Amino acid sequence: MSSISSTDAIATATAIRERRISAVEVMRATLEQIAATHETLNCFTDVLSEQALKQAERVDQSIAQGEQPGALAGVPFAVKNLFDVKGIVTLAGSKINRDNPPAVQDATAVAKLRQAGAILVGTLNMDEYAYGFVTENSHYGVTHNPHDVQRVAGGSSGGSAASVAAGLVPLTLGSDTNGSIRVPAAFCGVFGLKPTYGRLSRAGVYLLAASLDHIGSFARSVRDLALTFDLLQGEDLRDPICTPLPPEPCFPQIDQGIQGLRIAVAEGYFAEGGEPEVFAAVEQVAQALGATQRVILPESDRARAAAYVMTASEGGNLHFERLKTRPQDFDPATRDRFLAGTMIPNTWYVQSQRFRQWYRHQVRELFQKVDLILAPTTPCAAPLIGQTTMVLNGETMLVRPNLGLYTQPLSLIGLPVVSVPIQRPNALPLGVQIIAAPYREAWVLRAAAHLEAQGIVAASVRSPS
Amino acid sequence: MSSISSTDAIATATAIRERRISAVEVMRATLEQIAATHETLNCFTDVLSEQALKQAERVDQSIAQGEQPGALAGVPFAVKNLFDVKGIVTLAGSKINRDNPPAVQDATAVAKLRQAGAILVGTLNMDEYAYGFVTENSHYGVTHNPHDVQRVAGGSSGGSAASVAAGLVPLTLGSDTNGSIRVPAAFCGVFGLKPTYGRLSRAGVYLLAASLDHIGSFARSVRDLALTFDLLQGEDLRDPICTPLPPEPCFPQIDQGIQGLRIAVAEGYFAEGGEPEVFAAVEQVAQALGATQRVILPESDRARAAAYVMTASEGGNLHFERLKTRPQDFDPATRDRFLAGTMIPNTWYVQSQRFRQWYRHQVRELFQKVDLILAPTTPCAAPLIGQTTMVLNGETMLVRPNLGLYTQPLSLIGLPVVSVPIQRPNALPLGVQIIAAPYREAWVLRAAAHLEAQGIVAASVRSPS
Repeated sequence: MSSISSTDAIATATAIRERRISAVEVMRATLEQIAATHETLNCFTDVLSEQALKQAERVDQSIAQGEQPGALAGVPFAVKNLFDVKGIVTLAGSKINRDNPPAVQDATAVAKLRQAGAILVGTLNMDEYAYGFVTENSHYGVTHNPHDVQRVAGGSSGGSAASVAAGLVPLTLGSDTNGSIRVPAAFCGVFGLKPTYGRLSRAGVYLLAASLDHIGSFARSVRDLALTFDLLQGEDLRDPICTPLPPEPCFPQIDQGIQGLRIAVAEGYFAEGGEPEVFAAVEQVAQALGATQRVILPESDRARAAAYVMTASEGGNLHFERLKTRPQDFDPATRDRFLAGTMIPNTWYVQSQRFRQWYRHQVRELFQKVDLILAPTTPCAAPLIGQTTMVLNGETMLVRPNLGLYTQPLSLIGLPVVSVPIQRPNALPLGVQIIAAPYREAWVLRAAAHLEAQGIVAASVRSPS
Repeated sequence: MSSISSTDAIATATAIRERRISAVEVMRATLEQIAATHETLNCFTDVLSEQALKQAERVDQSIAQGEQPGALAGVPFAVKNLFDVKGIVTLAGSKINRDNPPAVQDATAVAKLRQAGAILVGTLNMDEYAYGFVTENSHYGVTHNPHDVQRVAGGSSGGSAASVAAGLVPLTLGSDTNGSIRVPAAFCGVFGLKPTYGRLSRAGVYLLAASLDHIGSFARSVRDLALTFDLLQGEDLRDPICTPLPPEPCFPQIDQGIQGLRIAVAEGYFAEGGEPEVFAAVEQVAQALGATQRVILPESDRARAAAYVMTASEGGNLHFERLKTRPQDFDPATRDRFLAGTMIPNTWYVQSQRFRQWYRHQVRELFQKVDLILAPTTPCAAPLIGQTTMVLNGETMLVRPNLGLYTQPLSLIGLPVVSVPIQRPNALPLGVQIIAAPYREAWVLRAAAHLEAQGIVAASVRSPS
């Protein structure tokens, strides 16, 4: 079964379709692996064994009957526990939500992957209400990094990244408000895609900060990311924010290479404040892509500050009633920031919005001259579990608020970004962000595929069991 | 010259083009009228006599030489003094802005009308920083209603409405955040168009509350409104909010009548709290349009509350530095509301935004069943200057905060609205709002043109001199 653990979703789907392996065999192995690693990794908060096995049987029957199954038929997948899954309670990493009734309908994204034949095996651990970068959850425990179980998986989609990196499932969904897909993807050494704001439906997703929340996916290959993105695209009447644009299939484009793409490295803010190794990773990617240009995204420190203000404000508002009535039931690390958010002066929030317009406009101008921009995903590799401070660039600082240094400014203005995994001998993986103008997911994926084909980037799959 | 005072811009442009009258004659008469009525009405804060006469001479020369002049060649127009006009200071109704340097470039809207040959004769009085419904400006005086000079013209675009109603200019520009085009259009008995949010460029316009501000125009005929709207359409790189949609000419559509349009009267919130006469005006329009349906825009009282919170918050933020350093230089009526705005709890503002999304969605659903919705523009006819309270529906209430009762919920979600003028024998004019889904200005204008052709609505032009 090691092949299933380390190959990608498309390879698994192909093997099942060609009856080299049955969906039931894949699912049994998957469930065994999840159970075997649960104590060590703590990725899952719900495992839907019975349901998943039944669905796998149905896939096998359908293939045996000669039917054309979906593109992901029989492929196990899992989702951050803020996605609605019909019949179970949407925890969003909280204790409070346990009192809610089970979801009556799948989130649109979950439904779309199921339509393609993928089989949902469970829901994944996260920071409470998606407000964090570490997945050290006081209710459901910490999720461990498969590459070093003493270290965090990153967050808030920690379970989504760790389960892919540990070889449990080839494909997961997560959400990204300030870096919650990209940070854990980098720490766990897998691919993570945060698409353009508004491009994928958030219907049935428990939000954190509505003007910043994106959904996206984790995978072990660029082709899986691209295929999944294509399956998730499309207008959704259940989500008024979802862009009413016709889908643009990216999967057929990923092998086009990088010819014609003008690629630059972000300097200034994005070239300061991190460990030397993260800039070395960016340079490695830049060289492989022939990127010689340098660009500056102006005032990116203010962009990050604006993202902080907006997240705390919108999150504080969303949880206002619960903060007043059940403060003791929150994760303390989450509660205190939400509470602070409700007390941020109004004029800061409005100012953040005005700044966002300005920043978006500046960056849009940059994209007249370049097509892709490279930057580190995180300022360092995965910190230790429980670690509160770190030394970056000679300065001691808090871990939690600083892991999103390079991701926050980009999600503020909704740019599509893929975090590509850099494998390093005897060292933890790192991530590099490939960034494009809105709706240019295809370009980002083309560059990622080119790097993958050259062996510059690759998912690190490592089962600790 | 009485014909020029009461006809519309297109008629004047035609007369000039056909050399039945010269542009210079029109301009001289215009400048005389402005001067003659200045003490009585106080519409203008700047009159550009010399420049305007020179431009009129050039129009005449160009026509004499057989050149094709623009669609509005020789037509005098004027703009609310928050539009940038190259060479003069953009007051935005304030004393503080007098210290600013003159604008170095015309606002996009001003430039577009000038390109069409229209001649800017001056800038018009308004409530300070566009924050009011009465144009009782403590720095520049009150603008009087030409139909009864004891009464307000409405606001904040009071000068823009009064100058059209008084026969001074056939065409003016204004801005509308909560009703600042529609309220004065109704009180002064002229047509006013507030287009879809984001459809017309706001570049070079001094804002009040960015997420609510629209620009639009006042005219004496529907065809003038439509032609002006067409001239103002189009993407503008100077304004990142401006929708990058190709222009859709409305002028050619206005004579298509109302066949095929499903028209309803707004009941509930929009049928309560006003004088009986405003509902009678709506019924008169409804009958003429054959509107038998009734619809309810749910929670419109909360929509109005959300508009209040957003205006005060965004306005307070915009003026924050000036409120701290020069409070004594504000109009007291404006300052105190801005100050309050800066102290509104953050969570109210965020809640207003969330509500706005909800309301927009509800109203979008309504527009699946109807194409146009009718509602009163104001709850009463123009109040007296200095009047602080009024009795509506048996209840005594403040004048200033309640004149936007029926306009505020609609601009909150950026719907296109034309206020059509109802003439009444021996009584002040009233307005009725014709409302459509976003980007359906053409439908609104078709209905207005149909009513105008039937004689149900008509601009009331009345020179007090």
